[in-house]
Amino acid sequence: MTTYAATPLTELLTALFQEAGATAEVAATTADVLVEGDLLGHHTHGIKLAHGYLQDLKAGKANGDPETLEMTESSPVAAVIDGHYVLGPYLVRHALEHAAQAAEGFGIGIVTLKRSHHIACLAAYLRPLVERHLVPVILSSDPAVASVAPYGGTTPVYTPNPLAIGIPGRDNPMLIDVSMSSITNGTVNKTRAEGGKLAHPAILTHRGTVSDAPEDFFTTPPGSILPLGGQAFGHKGFALGLMVEALTSALGGFGRKDAPTQWGASATVMVIDPARFGGIDAFVEETDFLTQRCLESERVDPEVAVRLPGQSGLAKRQRYLRDGIPLPEDVVVSLRKAIADSALADGPLSRALGL
Amino acid sequence: MTTYAATPLTELLTALFQEAGATAEVAATTADVLVEGDLLGHHTHGIKLAHGYLQDLKAGKANGDPETLEMTESSPVAAVIDGHYVLGPYLVRHALEHAAQAAEGFGIGIVTLKRSHHIACLAAYLRPLVERHLVPVILSSDPAVASVAPYGGTTPVYTPNPLAIGIPGRDNPMLIDVSMSSITNGTVNKTRAEGGKLAHPAILTHRGTVSDAPEDFFTTPPGSILPLGGQAFGHKGFALGLMVEALTSALGGFGRKDAPTQWGASATVMVIDPARFGGIDAFVEETDFLTQRCLESERVDPEVAVRLPGQSGLAKRQRYLRDGIPLPEDVVVSLRKAIADSALADGPLSRALGL
Repeated sequence: MTTYAATPLTELLTALFQEAGATAEVAATTADVLVEGDLLGHHTHGIKLAHGYLQDLKAGKANGDPETLEMTESSPVAAVIDGHYVLGPYLVRHALEHAAQAAEGFGIGIVTLKRSHHIACLAAYLRPLVERHLVPVILSSDPAVASVAPYGGTTPVYTPNPLAIGIPGRDNPMLIDVSMSSITNGTVNKTRAEGGKLAHPAILTHRGTVSDAPEDFFTTPPGSILPLGGQAFGHKGFALGLMVEALTSALGGFGRKDAPTQWGASATVMVIDPARFGGIDAFVEETDFLTQRCLESERVDPEVAVRLPGQSGLAKRQRYLRDGIPLPEDVVVSLRKAIADSALADGPLSRALGL
Repeated sequence: MTTYAATPLTELLTALFQEAGATAEVAATTADVLVEGDLLGHHTHGIKLAHGYLQDLKAGKANGDPETLEMTESSPVAAVIDGHYVLGPYLVRHALEHAAQAAEGFGIGIVTLKRSHHIACLAAYLRPLVERHLVPVILSSDPAVASVAPYGGTTPVYTPNPLAIGIPGRDNPMLIDVSMSSITNGTVNKTRAEGGKLAHPAILTHRGTVSDAPEDFFTTPPGSILPLGGQAFGHKGFALGLMVEALTSALGGFGRKDAPTQWGASATVMVIDPARFGGIDAFVEETDFLTQRCLESERVDPEVAVRLPGQSGLAKRQRYLRDGIPLPEDVVVSLRKAIADSALADGPLSRALGL
C-alpha cells in the first residue's frame, strides 16, 4: 500500500488552505489537526475533510481569518467564543490553549465555542495536552444536522455528539473519543459509499425496526442512528447525547433553535490540571494501576488482548511517523480533488507526494 | 399499596442517624437525600440504604461528624475534600454548594471528593441546583468494588461509574443519572434477591458469554456487568467508565491503587453557571426547543411516548409528595430492620408511619 509522509502532507494542506484564503496560522493549524487525525488512524475525520473545508472557504461558508473570532471572557476561567465560522481546528486549538492556561492557574478552565466551522477529529487535539499532564475534555454537536432520534422515537433530532478526553499516565496515557450514538454519520456515509453492510445493526429505520443497511438511513422519511446502548439501553445514550447538546449549544446560546444550515459545530472545551487537585504523581499512578489491571484481565477471546482507548491510535501514530501514513483510497481520491481544484496541481508539493 | 409521607420519613431517618452518632446537620442532609431518591422513584438508592449507613456509623466505618472533613482550596474554583468517610450525602451537598458559589462567581466550580462514604442516588442532588438555573454535574466511582470488566476482558476491574447532570429548562428541565455500564450492581442484587431474570442480558459470564441470570455474576471466578454498549459497542462504555475513574479517583489521588476495602466513593462535582456563558434565557430556550422536538418525535411504539430523562421521576415526585411514597416491600423490610436496631422502635415517629 502506498504511504504518505506526514510532513509533506501537512505542508501541502497548509498551502492549499492558504491559497483558499486562510492565514498562515489558521492554515497550518488546520493542516496539522487533519494529518494528526490520519496519524491516529481516524481516516474518516482527517485529511479527507480538507476538500470540503476548501470548498467552504472558497464559497465564503468557512472563514480563514482568526481576527474575526470574538472571545468574551466572563472570568479568568470561563469564556465564550463566537467563531464566525473560522475553521474549527484553529478555534478548538485556540480555545484549548486558553483553557489550559486557566487550568494551570486555577485548576480548571472552560471555553464554549459557538458558530464554529467543522472541528474534525476530537482525538487529534488531546495528545499535546496530555503530554503536559493536563486533562483536556472536548464536547461537540452540530446544530445544523439531525441524525439521531430520541430513545423511543424515530424522528432524527440531534447528532452523534462526541465526547473526548485525554488522560495522562506514565505507562498508559489514554485518548478517548467516543460518540454518544452507536456509530457516527461518517461511518454510515462511508459504508454506503462502499456498498456494504454495517458491522452491527446500528440504524433505526423510520418504521422503528433495527437494520444494518446504510440505505435505511437515507429513506424518506429518514432513518436514524441508534443512541449508544441500542434498543435495550438506549435511554442512557440518549441522556448522554442530551448532556452534550446542553453543554455545547445551550451553554453557548446558539443551537437548533437558531436553525443554522451551514456545516459547523457547537463545541465546549474544558481543561483540568491534576496538579491543582490530588497531584500529578497520584493521578498517573492511579491511571497506571487501573490500566494495568485492565490489560491483565482474562480475555473473552484468548487471541484478542484488551485494548485501552487510544492505545492502537498512538501505536499507529508512531509507526506512521516512521513509515508514512497508509491513506485509504477514498482519502487519496478526496485529496486529489482538492489539489485539482487548486493552483498547486503538478506543483512541487503534490509531485513530491506522487499526488 | 401502602404509601408513606415524605416528611415523617425524613424525620424518622434524621432521628435514626442522630441516634447513631451523626450531627443534626449530617443526619438531616442524609435523610433528605435518601428520601429524595425514593421520591424520584430510585428505590434501590434511597431509604433502603439507611440500614447499611446506620450499621457503618455504629461500627465506626462511616463518620457522622462534619468537622473531620478536610477541604483544600487550590483556587477560588477548585478544591479537594478528604471526606474521612463522612456520610456521602452530606459531603456531596457540601461540595456542590461550594462549587455552585464558585460557578456563580466564575462560571464554573469543581470539587473532588476522596474517601467519601457511599453517596446514594446522584439524581437526588440535582433539582435544587437546576431550579437555581445552574448545571450540576456529579461523577462517582467506588474504588473498593470491581464489578465491570474492561471491554474484551472478563475480569471485573472497575464499577458502573455513574454520571449525573441537571439541565435547566423552562418547560422541560432534565435530571440525568446514568451509569457507564448496562445496569448497576443494585439491579443485579435486587433481581437476584427476587429470584428473577434481568430484563436484558447484561451480565458477562466469567467464560465470556452473555447472560440474563444474576447468578452468573456471583460465580467463582466472578462474572461482570457489561459496559454500556454491550458486546457490539462496549468499547464506548468502557472508555466512558475509564473517564469517570480518571475524573474521580485519579483526580482526587486516592483510588484502586490504595486498595480501600470499606463502603465508600470517589466523587467529583462540577457546577456550571450558564449566566456566565451564553446566558440563562438562551440556555433554557435551547433546552426547551430541543426537548420539544424530542417529545414530538414519531414513536417506535405508538402507545409509548418519548420520555425525557428525569421526566418520569419529577412526575412521581409531585405525586408522591401529595399522596405519599409507595415504598416497595424490600425497602420497608430494610427500614423496619433499621428501626428495630434502634431506640426508636415503637416510638412516636415509627408508629405514626405504621412501621
